[in-house]
Amino acid sequence: MQSVDTLIEARWVLPVEPEGVVLEHHTVVIDDGRIGAVLPHAQARSAFSANRTVELGEHVLLPGLVNAHTHAGMTLLRGFADDLPLMRWLEEHVWPVERRWVSEEFVRDGTMLAVAEMLRGGTTCFNDMYFYPGEAGHAAAAAGMRCVLGMIVLDFPSVWAKDAGEYLSRATEIHDEFRSHPLVDTAFAPHAPYTVSDGPLERIRTLADELDVPIHIHLHETAGEVEDALARGDVRPFARLDRLGLVSPRLMAVHMTALEDGEIGRLAECGAHVVHCPESNLKLASGFCPVAKLLAAGVNVALGTDGAASNNDLDMIQEMRTASLVAKALARDATAVPAHRAIAMATIAGARALGKDDAIGSLAPGKAADMIAIDLSAIESQPVYDAASQVAFSASRRQVSHVWIAGRPVLAEGALLTVDEGQVLERAAHWRQRIGGEPR
Amino acid sequence: MQSVDTLIEARWVLPVEPEGVVLEHHTVVIDDGRIGAVLPHAQARSAFSANRTVELGEHVLLPGLVNAHTHAGMTLLRGFADDLPLMRWLEEHVWPVERRWVSEEFVRDGTMLAVAEMLRGGTTCFNDMYFYPGEAGHAAAAAGMRCVLGMIVLDFPSVWAKDAGEYLSRATEIHDEFRSHPLVDTAFAPHAPYTVSDGPLERIRTLADELDVPIHIHLHETAGEVEDALARGDVRPFARLDRLGLVSPRLMAVHMTALEDGEIGRLAECGAHVVHCPESNLKLASGFCPVAKLLAAGVNVALGTDGAASNNDLDMIQEMRTASLVAKALARDATAVPAHRAIAMATIAGARALGKDDAIGSLAPGKAADMIAIDLSAIESQPVYDAASQVAFSASRRQVSHVWIAGRPVLAEGALLTVDEGQVLERAAHWRQRIGGEPR
Repeated sequence: MQSVDTLIEARWVLPVEPEGVVLEHHTVVIDDGRIGAVLPHAQARSAFSANRTVELGEHVLLPGLVNAHTHAGMTLLRGFADDLPLMRWLEEHVWPVERRWVSEEFVRDGTMLAVAEMLRGGTTCFNDMYFYPGEAGHAAAAAGMRCVLGMIVLDFPSVWAKDAGEYLSRATEIHDEFRSHPLVDTAFAPHAPYTVSDGPLERIRTLADELDVPIHIHLHETAGEVEDALARGDVRPFARLDRLGLVSPRLMAVHMTALEDGEIGRLAECGAHVVHCPESNLKLASGFCPVAKLLAAGVNVALGTDGAASNNDLDMIQEMRTASLVAKALARDATAVPAHRAIAMATIAGARALGKDDAIGSLAPGKAADMIAIDLSAIESQPVYDAASQVAFSASRRQVSHVWIAGRPVLAEGALLTVDEGQVLERAAHWRQRIGGEPR
Repeated sequence: MQSVDTLIEARWVLPVEPEGVVLEHHTVVIDDGRIGAVLPHAQARSAFSANRTVELGEHVLLPGLVNAHTHAGMTLLRGFADDLPLMRWLEEHVWPVERRWVSEEFVRDGTMLAVAEMLRGGTTCFNDMYFYPGEAGHAAAAAGMRCVLGMIVLDFPSVWAKDAGEYLSRATEIHDEFRSHPLVDTAFAPHAPYTVSDGPLERIRTLADELDVPIHIHLHETAGEVEDALARGDVRPFARLDRLGLVSPRLMAVHMTALEDGEIGRLAECGAHVVHCPESNLKLASGFCPVAKLLAAGVNVALGTDGAASNNDLDMIQEMRTASLVAKALARDATAVPAHRAIAMATIAGARALGKDDAIGSLAPGKAADMIAIDLSAIESQPVYDAASQVAFSASRRQVSHVWIAGRPVLAEGALLTVDEGQVLERAAHWRQRIGGEPR
């Protein structure tokens, strides 16, 4: 018998790769933070002796969800301004309040609130874009959560840097600080084509190659963004990024609601990734990302919640449901983005976009043990004909009972193990009071 | 001091009427099953002495949600067949399994599962359409839940009746059985224009007037339904119902994805109601109901989940969120269906569609005390700048902590008081076993 750390015996296992498989009465073996094997209970018991066995008799086990686009610190602005179009929301509400309040403390507290919310909802890795990324990294690391820090770049000054040159020098400092961290990676995060000019974008392309990190950018979020570029006599923003050499497997293009067929083909040809944020796109009336077309063309489509200020939550289970439902309606094809594909988008596709699919995103031997269990015994999930259908179309994040990251339990029986919930709530109340005065 | 049954002291109260109001630190007075008053805590304490005071210091209190279209018994088919277009889903999966399994026992057990799910999620009244409506009525009544039973009518035989004449005679039997029930009402429920011919529809119009009950019908669910009618040389189904005299304030037209501007005007002119089921429409790729246009024209738009077999849940909080988000994107207007309007659609608009807005749908003195409390202390709802935003855009049904129907507590601290959850789960497992064989 081989000695291992943990055996997790689940009623159902969705390994995600190969796609479409539902294993029953299977055990996932965890050793030294990695998945050792996935095999039937009886075989696992006869082959392995474990320090700990977790029995999940009414649960489905799947890879941790990957939130491929968020602004974690902004969780402190949840519900601060709703029912407004993107540019008014940004210019009249979000940017002014950010200028007034964003600080290291704001980002630390906001990210910890986001981390607590995401872990409770089964997200084990997030791809962030915000100011003071180092603070976000420390918050995630303290909770044992995996993340990719966006090294943000803008042309204009902010609390974080005064010009593109300073953003870039701060970026390399952040990269150096976390370069050997086991859970925290980095990506360049030029905010958008309309806020970053050609010079810094070209510099980012070169530095991303040198440091071997992805590039994370808002792109074609609205038709207006494209029209504005054309009105300035410029090419379409995607074409501009392509001309600058940024359209490559390093690129995570977030939103992409305004797309021509040629652009879809070019994304596929270059191996660039689309990060789809359906609820943010709907809420801000930004437009519809043509998900079914992108998938048919072979483009990798990951999912993100965007920030809680525009969503208004960081709920990847609901995001995958919305992605599937809206893709069907938009494509006028009820077979588009079926349950297993939606789950794959929320897991392995996110890992692939982040360049981390060798390490996470599916339950394969050798990968990190980033996993979640969803309890299907609730009335809301009964009866169970198909565990994948329940995950994609009816389970709630409140049914996430267990979360492991690199084999470490961070949520068990619905309780956070690495985050002080009382402190998180106290800090949220503190910022509510400062930013909004007396709660109404 | 006036003696009353209960004072509910809430941190926030959303009375729904007038729309847009958020009351803080207000008390709702319940006496004899009705709302006696809504007033500040201090005023309530000095004016009323209550047998019971419920303190909800971190909760928002609002009217119970009205699910204006469902097929409760079908909850036993949750996740039975997904990712299929409407007619294939019906003809190849749903109708065959219904022919094989639907019985009084199936409807009783399925409805009780639905009732348990709906109560846990804050729905206090549902508008049903299914076979054996009497069984559904008994299940709801046993749980103390309000409902409107659809007296289903089809041209073709089913387990419930052999022809339109028998459906109609069974309808009047059901109406008579429940005519003086305090919680259970009835409506005629001709299934759809393509399954009910002119004769029975005309008879339903007459009987509905005589019995003073609404008419509940699937209408313009898909563009295909309209095209098929035209291909048969018929007029559009809505025009046909109008010609037959069914377009009136009694009409609840469910789905309405394929609508011309003239039809929207006619709905408004006649005071007919639209029941929007956004998640079902998305999942079956049925099309998009033009909600913002309907509201702008003055049409009352209620919300329904449709059955759990096509949704796959009976979650009205999520349904109102999806309705708001999709309406914004479809209208290309982020200001469309803001938070308060979405909440009104899920409450007073449903009451109005059912002809019950004198009795339920808002927290107004004299109305029945059908109310729910949502606990906003959860990490997922923090910080709170605007309680209405949290309800519409971030709260989950699992945060519904208390539910009262006609003043009777049916859920408290998240636990059902009038339903035996163990029995509900046992019956769901029983049907899962019978219908699907061994769970996979």
